[in-house]
Amino acid sequence: MLNIGIIGAGRIGKVHLESISYHVKNAQVTAVADPFINDETRKFVASFGDIAVYDDYKEIIEDKNIDAVLVCSSTDTHASISIEAINAGKHVFCEKPIDRTVEKIEAVADALDKNPGIKFQVGFNRRFDHNFAAIRKAYDEGKIGEALILKITSRDPEPPNPAYISVSGGIFLDMTIHDFDMAMFLTNSDVEEIYVNSAVLVDPAIGEQGDVDTAIITMKMANGALAVIDNSRRAAYGYDQRAELFGSKGAIAISNDSLSTAVLSNSDGVTGEKPLYFFLERYMQSFVEEMKQFVDACVNDKEVPVGIHAGLQAVKVALAAKESVAKHAPVKIQ
Amino acid sequence: MLNIGIIGAGRIGKVHLESISYHVKNAQVTAVADPFINDETRKFVASFGDIAVYDDYKEIIEDKNIDAVLVCSSTDTHASISIEAINAGKHVFCEKPIDRTVEKIEAVADALDKNPGIKFQVGFNRRFDHNFAAIRKAYDEGKIGEALILKITSRDPEPPNPAYISVSGGIFLDMTIHDFDMAMFLTNSDVEEIYVNSAVLVDPAIGEQGDVDTAIITMKMANGALAVIDNSRRAAYGYDQRAELFGSKGAIAISNDSLSTAVLSNSDGVTGEKPLYFFLERYMQSFVEEMKQFVDACVNDKEVPVGIHAGLQAVKVALAAKESVAKHAPVKIQ
Amino acid sequence: MLNIGIIGAGRIGKVHLESISYHVKNAQVTAVADPFINDETRKFVASFGDIAVYDDYKEIIEDKNIDAVLVCSSTDTHASISIEAINAGKHVFCEKPIDRTVEKIEAVADALDKNPGIKFQVGFNRRFDHNFAAIRKAYDEGKIGEALILKITSRDPEPPNPAYISVSGGIFLDMTIHDFDMAMFLTNSDVEEIYVNSAVLVDPAIGEQGDVDTAIITMKMANGALAVIDNSRRAAYGYDQRAELFGSKGAIAISNDSLSTAVLSNSDGVTGEKPLYFFLERYMQSFVEEMKQFVDACVNDKEVPVGIHAGLQAVKVALAAKESVAKHAPVKIQ
Amino acid sequence: MLNIGIIGAGRIGKVHLESISYHVKNAQVTAVADPFINDETRKFVASFGDIAVYDDYKEIIEDKNIDAVLVCSSTDTHASISIEAINAGKHVFCEKPIDRTVEKIEAVADALDKNPGIKFQVGFNRRFDHNFAAIRKAYDEGKIGEALILKITSRDPEPPNPAYISVSGGIFLDMTIHDFDMAMFLTNSDVEEIYVNSAVLVDPAIGEQGDVDTAIITMKMANGALAVIDNSRRAAYGYDQRAELFGSKGAIAISNDSLSTAVLSNSDGVTGEKPLYFFLERYMQSFVEEMKQFVDACVNDKEVPVGIHAGLQAVKVALAAKESVAKHAPVKIQ
Repeated sequence: MLNIGIIGAGRIGKVHLESISYHVKNAQVTAVADPFINDETRKFVASFGDIAVYDDYKEIIEDKNIDAVLVCSSTDTHASISIEAINAGKHVFCEKPIDRTVEKIEAVADALDKNPGIKFQVGFNRRFDHNFAAIRKAYDEGKIGEALILKITSRDPEPPNPAYISVSGGIFLDMTIHDFDMAMFLTNSDVEEIYVNSAVLVDPAIGEQGDVDTAIITMKMANGALAVIDNSRRAAYGYDQRAELFGSKGAIAISNDSLSTAVLSNSDGVTGEKPLYFFLERYMQSFVEEMKQFVDACVNDKEVPVGIHAGLQAVKVALAAKESVAKHAPVKIQ
Repeated sequence: MLNIGIIGAGRIGKVHLESISYHVKNAQVTAVADPFINDETRKFVASFGDIAVYDDYKEIIEDKNIDAVLVCSSTDTHASISIEAINAGKHVFCEKPIDRTVEKIEAVADALDKNPGIKFQVGFNRRFDHNFAAIRKAYDEGKIGEALILKITSRDPEPPNPAYISVSGGIFLDMTIHDFDMAMFLTNSDVEEIYVNSAVLVDPAIGEQGDVDTAIITMKMANGALAVIDNSRRAAYGYDQRAELFGSKGAIAISNDSLSTAVLSNSDGVTGEKPLYFFLERYMQSFVEEMKQFVDACVNDKEVPVGIHAGLQAVKVALAAKESVAKHAPVKIQ
Repeated sequence: MLNIGIIGAGRIGKVHLESISYHVKNAQVTAVADPFINDETRKFVASFGDIAVYDDYKEIIEDKNIDAVLVCSSTDTHASISIEAINAGKHVFCEKPIDRTVEKIEAVADALDKNPGIKFQVGFNRRFDHNFAAIRKAYDEGKIGEALILKITSRDPEPPNPAYISVSGGIFLDMTIHDFDMAMFLTNSDVEEIYVNSAVLVDPAIGEQGDVDTAIITMKMANGALAVIDNSRRAAYGYDQRAELFGSKGAIAISNDSLSTAVLSNSDGVTGEKPLYFFLERYMQSFVEEMKQFVDACVNDKEVPVGIHAGLQAVKVALAAKESVAKHAPVKIQ
Repeated sequence: MLNIGIIGAGRIGKVHLESISYHVKNAQVTAVADPFINDETRKFVASFGDIAVYDDYKEIIEDKNIDAVLVCSSTDTHASISIEAINAGKHVFCEKPIDRTVEKIEAVADALDKNPGIKFQVGFNRRFDHNFAAIRKAYDEGKIGEALILKITSRDPEPPNPAYISVSGGIFLDMTIHDFDMAMFLTNSDVEEIYVNSAVLVDPAIGEQGDVDTAIITMKMANGALAVIDNSRRAAYGYDQRAELFGSKGAIAISNDSLSTAVLSNSDGVTGEKPLYFFLERYMQSFVEEMKQFVDACVNDKEVPVGIHAGLQAVKVALAAKESVAKHAPVKIQ
């Protein structure tokens, strides 16, 4: 039985608590820490059994009975808490991005190098999504031959509060980072070069924060494939999450999930349901699956499915995307 | 060059004139006869070249230069005109149904027996439709194994004028007759037994004519397969023409054609186009194709693709359908 | 907190145990009874906490602390156990069919009449399925107008062991009974008359048991709509569960669920995934939902969503279906 | 009646001859000129009636009875023949591209300025395709709000003979030029800036010709929308022609046409037909429609639907695409 402490009891911390309690064998959450925890959250935690609740995450770090830590706190604390946990001999599951700087992520990598038995997984949950995983599976099985063109469409249902932009580091670090990871996962290759074509077409207030809200991002992958991501902060029809990998022998494409397969035919046309609107709804199964695999890696000493390399590369690409916008030119990823 | 006379210059006669003129090699229309021909139709005919126009169809029967006749007159004249043409040594393409009685169709069959060189084709155009033909092709190629269940959905966009019912012989003879032929074509088998579950749900005036407007018709085919047709005289979304053949190794299904593949995603849902609304629009390509094959059979002395047997069986099944409604019981086809 | 005892720890009993433990608020399973319980099942039960395990279901009936009972035992015991539980003042969730005879179901109804505070729900889980529920919702909201034609396709991936047939009462009682309930649920109407067109096309051994394995079942509903169900004991592509309700203003149709939306385009065509193969996979969410609503009805004294009437009618229709096959004629439901 | 002369009796010249003869009112082809005309082509032309056949196109230019000319000769002669025809007072339909240089196209524009009554249409047939036209129609009708992101996928079934590259001017001038025109048509806006991410992934021999065979092309449109085209010279599943216009109120997307709607479900999956393989098959209806509209513009003195501006802009964008590859940088369109 793996004893887990969750640091950060916000939305995603709660998701992991529920996933582990209901769906993951060989693991239990024994403590939750959050400096801003409120009564509602305390009650929610209590409904999953006898779980300690702390204000200070250090109580989790220092708890000898805790084997693994989920770092679900605010992004600027991910790297330092991860390092503390690693040095305390705990396995770490860290939400994405690990940090907004390469330097701090490399510091985590250094800590891992010094603690070789420690598992460290990054929260790129989409890798575990049934649709995205089906693309990679088809590719791995040789069904489409060599990867030539990857296309990802990723559009949010609603833009964030513009104030969030300054905290998040902008669209490439808070939203596209998932797509960057998907590009690397689906083609099984790192990114070599990136060029961003972008604009402010959704909300001028986003532009005033120095960010963009609409982008077409094209990349060369290290394995020679070309890739393109198109992003928008707002799609009128909901959360749009599609991808297509085109190869020498064929193409594999995924479309959106919806609440049901119902289709209404009437004098207006033939109408199916909108995509699932909210990321928690759309990706719930993937949050469960990433926890299962993290626990499996810890308990059975297996390789984690999404390691520090993936976490570092996605941030490097996101930073290069920002640079491409600034320089109005293609940028190589180092 | 096959010289063709068209008897009956109504909607379908005009369709055949245009098909032959534009799309069929080795054939030309040299005469059209219609007792009710008007100036507009005369002008339409003239636009296709130097074509004789008669009031009396006998001028076509007696024209030695005419090799083949298309019988597109009113249904009650199909059989007698066909017999005259056959006896005059002309190939005949006869619109469906050949007649509303078995006796008259058998009289046509007798005339054919006495004139063995004559080609006689029935106007079951749907056999030549790209979608329906794809089902039969998959079946013939063994892709679904043995036929087990056939399903046909056939719904019209608008009910006919109730007055038409007394002329047409009712839904089974004017509308479902195509579906009966499809059932036999798609399973490559005759019908053995039929049971009709029907109602008047669209227009009470149809009921007052002694007919029904909504029906679920289930059949046993001679080859053992079960079949079902569902009919409605009015579908709010247009002309609904679908089918599915389920077999021991799989199923092959066809859906409706529409004007374009365009799909609109917005806050109301994900909406594609309605089916093509009108039968001439939906089946235009099949009208061309049946003419091509009729001319090919005449010119190259090949077997016609839809012969007198098909024409007779479809009427027998339609009459049995009426009997099943009257008796409220299953009825065997003789 | 509703204390629940589960009688019968077979496949479906385990499903309910898991659903309640993980997904249903305000309820807990406190006891499980099964005369054939084995070590594996004991271990499974124990993994959900401190739950009593009995051989004899009467220990559950007599347990004053148990508020509700799930009857998941073999079909021939459903009615008598339900009656005992009802008379012991316990709410009952009974798996389908309640019994294979009208008499025994009416005895349950009598027991309910005498115990008016007791909730009794039948396990027609498909009513809670996201797809089927979407049809009923669209109908209730007036989106398709009046119901005219209902079509249900229900095909199993594999036929049962022929020996099972004599136990189950045949295809209409063990398989189509769900479809009969769906027909009534989707049209919101009872069945008035039924005619069955059937054959043995999948496995001759099923015919030797006096049953059929392929059927087209057509019905008149009490509200005037026509309905048709097509059944096969084996579909080469998996579990086929589709439906369409056609009405005066439009039609609403549902298709199969699959593991992902992935579509492979290559030189063979454009290929999507097969339907989910197994009923537990396909309907898992509906098993959770029916439990939630049962518990809600018990705890908050609401009407159950699927009561004794539905359980009785489905069996009456199934028995009429058998009679229709025997008589080769349409049969009215009393 | 518009008398038309066709200059160039290759594949596309023959398509126009057939379209006009069979499907276009108020027009007839009276002469065809081609220096390389062979017996087969002479016979083909003769099958459409009494049409003069010349080796020298000047006989058409000088024929006073000819009102309009279709320039279907090799690309390097398009501009000069067009100018001759314009100056001879004939309307011109010119195949794309008008020329591979901006200078020569501007010379055609000058000739048009001097002959204001002359109609000049460019052969961008896709504007008349049912699918692409449906996108523009939805956009014009305000169904998607403001255009934000346009995506075009355009992949050929087979690469050309590498020797053709040096003649054609490369992928951007012979293949993508249609997509550039579509980008401008669908967004109703010119292109402002372009960046090309490209590679040789299909055939090294194409690279040896100095061209690329795989490309992701991203653009800023003058109206602010972002656009992306992905091209491949070879798709294993055939001719891939899709597009999606995403706007502030929704998105409209088109998928490929196929031979039928048939879908086979078996143990391998659920398989539909491949896209139509060949451009003549895929776009046949659009070739007819562009002729209808050209003739209508000539006969009824209307504005042509695709004028010299469109022809010039597409070439400017194609040349900028080549420059972007050479400079490895975004390039503005002048």
